Amino acid sequence: MKDVLGSPGTWSGMALRLSQCVLAGASMAAMATAYGFSNYTAFCYLIASMGLQLLWSFGLACLDIYSLKTKRDLHNPVLVSLFVVGDWVTAILSFAAASASAGVTILFERDVHFCRMYPQLSCGRYELSVILAFITWSFIATSAVSMFWLLPSL
Amino acid sequence: MKDVLGSPGTWSGMALRLSQCVLAGASMAAMATAYGFSNYTAFCYLIASMGLQLLWSFGLACLDIYSLKTKRDLHNPVLVSLFVVGDWVTAILSFAAASASAGVTILFERDVHFCRMYPQLSCGRYELSVILAFITWSFIATSAVSMFWLLPSL
Repeated sequence: MKDVLGSPGTWSGMALRLSQCVLAGASMAAMATAYGFSNYTAFCYLIASMGLQLLWSFGLACLDIYSLKTKRDLHNPVLVSLFVVGDWVTAILSFAAASASAGVTILFERDVHFCRMYPQLSCGRYELSVILAFITWSFIATSAVSMFWLLPSL
Repeated sequence: MKDVLGSPGTWSGMALRLSQCVLAGASMAAMATAYGFSNYTAFCYLIASMGLQLLWSFGLACLDIYSLKTKRDLHNPVLVSLFVVGDWVTAILSFAAASASAGVTILFERDVHFCRMYPQLSCGRYELSVILAFITWSFIATSAVSMFWLLPSL
């Protein structure tokens, strides 16, 4: 089962983790540089959630690099269970943050027209950050499903 | 593996499906009776998503009842794969709707103070509907994980 996409200690696993880091960082950066984000709870939560995602994925990317260098096998039930729990928790938090921020962004653009009324609001950056958060989530969801799939075979 | 909680064609499976129906219906009713919900995309999406959830869970509850009455076994790979896909799709849609609506409700209550400025808005009902949607999601997530867990054993 070591050839499951995104399996820990493999090149695909490392690539997936690094992509998650880059995308979560880009989503955070887009939101943090948007004017007025700090007035809205959903956007602050998005930054916190992407920050947590970045730390988790970075930690696992380092572990993958270490495993690839030293040829140590990371496929033991305790470690994979830990990865499953961590991946699922961060995936759920990221998806909640992305959805909540998308809800607020759509509200600003289409429902209450804040973007037109207050042109200083960086609605374009809010959108970009939300799109990047959804892409990050799709990558972490891939990892989470792979880990869960891997678990019964250990 | 027939004794996995929420397995199709069992009493626990049927109870889980009926709970999902009742909770999704209650969430829809709370939102549909709230003043002004139709002006906000996230709240309309919540109703649509809970409606889909209600239909899906109702269909599977009927199938469980049929299976319990006729003692037909629903544990075949094609059927369970279909349940897995349906459960995961509806679970993701429900969670996205609940999170987006929670984001908008928190925005109204804490960030832009619409609830205080426009007392005619039924913020209490928005909250109730969101809480019920999250509880519905936790039940559908239980079904989705059970089905996914069941799949490799078939």
